[in-house]
Amino acid sequence: MILINGQAGHSIPISDRGFQYGDGLFETMAVKQGMPLCLPGHLERLTHGCQRLNIPKPEWSTLQKEIKTVAGDLQRGVLKIIVTRGASGRGYAPVTNVSANRVITSFDWPDYPSRFREEGIDACLCETRLARNSKLAGLKHLNRLEQVLGRGECDANKVPEGIMLDTDGNLIEGTMSNLFLIHKDRLITPILTHSGIQGVIRARILELSHEIKGLEVRVEKLPPSILAQVDGAFFCNSVMGIWPIKRIAKYHYSIPYIIRQLQRELVDLRIISES
Amino acid sequence: MILINGQAGHSIPISDRGFQYGDGLFETMAVKQGMPLCLPGHLERLTHGCQRLNIPKPEWSTLQKEIKTVAGDLQRGVLKIIVTRGASGRGYAPVTNVSANRVITSFDWPDYPSRFREEGIDACLCETRLARNSKLAGLKHLNRLEQVLGRGECDANKVPEGIMLDTDGNLIEGTMSNLFLIHKDRLITPILTHSGIQGVIRARILELSHEIKGLEVRVEKLPPSILAQVDGAFFCNSVMGIWPIKRIAKYHYSIPYIIRQLQRELVDLRIISES
Repeated sequence: MILINGQAGHSIPISDRGFQYGDGLFETMAVKQGMPLCLPGHLERLTHGCQRLNIPKPEWSTLQKEIKTVAGDLQRGVLKIIVTRGASGRGYAPVTNVSANRVITSFDWPDYPSRFREEGIDACLCETRLARNSKLAGLKHLNRLEQVLGRGECDANKVPEGIMLDTDGNLIEGTMSNLFLIHKDRLITPILTHSGIQGVIRARILELSHEIKGLEVRVEKLPPSILAQVDGAFFCNSVMGIWPIKRIAKYHYSIPYIIRQLQRELVDLRIISES
Repeated sequence: MILINGQAGHSIPISDRGFQYGDGLFETMAVKQGMPLCLPGHLERLTHGCQRLNIPKPEWSTLQKEIKTVAGDLQRGVLKIIVTRGASGRGYAPVTNVSANRVITSFDWPDYPSRFREEGIDACLCETRLARNSKLAGLKHLNRLEQVLGRGECDANKVPEGIMLDTDGNLIEGTMSNLFLIHKDRLITPILTHSGIQGVIRARILELSHEIKGLEVRVEKLPPSILAQVDGAFFCNSVMGIWPIKRIAKYHYSIPYIIRQLQRELVDLRIISES
């Protein structure tokens, strides 16, 4: 099902700035029994993105009604929201007198093998780097060529996910997920002030982890050399949940207890879906 | 007029990867008496972009026939070609079994005042920076949020164009054009190995300039401090032609003879349109 500004449809005008310039934002969430998981977190990030890009925020109650319509259709699936700056003539100038376009699409639940979350995955280190720009960092905007190229490397390497570094050589995230590392009693995730997407699940994991006794949580700049030191690592996003990393480059990891604990808690709290 | 894969139309499927991820390329050219100017240069850049992004190259004879159809309609105007990686399901992975989508659109000739090219313009220095990524640098791809934000600054500053720096603080280009500086008998333009778009007119100006006796041509890394030293500067693209810069920040420039000579030669050689 696709709703475009509230109407069923399958296409968007060529003049839409999302198509012309990637001038927009998106959100992807899991849906279970007609309910999008972590909806407030996704809407909060979308609001923040609209503010930072100066895109007119869509009418909230309308958007929520449309989300409910599309999600209501889904026993189990994925819902994607795209908000663009709307249509305009030729030229980059961000027109001010138009309203945002909203596209809400439902997808089947992806058939990720359950062993990815149970046994973990092999990952690659992508050669494609993420550019650094604090003006765009953190946002889930529609300029995603770097992720497309990184994802192509994962496919070529026959692994389900890969780690991307920024152009300064810092660890940043997966091609479609955020990255966490575990070192003894410490949970560490890259700081995303210059590159990367501030994931909704990443934020919930950070919140939860602060409450786990004896666990030290750090958000910091991380060189790839840290991969030689850590005990474990995982990727996370709204649809995959948590995938432990078994192997990356020459490093092999176990699955520390904290990963199992987080997987359980995220499911219990309906932050992710159990499979 | 809009041709979408050869058919008249106004919209593109939501599943198009141009809309989903900015996963594509574009070209914009001037049309005069039904003929696109510098068409070989634009097609060459498009080919190069397809190769670098591993986007299937559209069937060339078909694309050229479509360009001819859309341009033939225009006494005077602008033609824009968008090529995307085609449609796919959800997910960044660059699918390999689909063919590129082609969108060719005609636009009215923009009503830039003739004084822009005759008397020159005031320009701003944009605060929005261009991220550095050699993997994407030079390409006219569809990830153009930085240009959208930069262009918004030009509008806010009420100037027709602005200079953008990269995140390392080097001069790179205009928000919709390339940048040249003139210092005595030297023509200088920023090197675009890490940011910026390799403009078709920029390439022709470099070719022409190498033939001008006594003119030294340099392509190099340029700090903003050079703006205090140069005698003149200009922006160029396929539609504006050459706009001399009269003033930027606290610097005022004359219009050196070489700018007038290049303006004349580009028109004589039908590289740009005279107004």
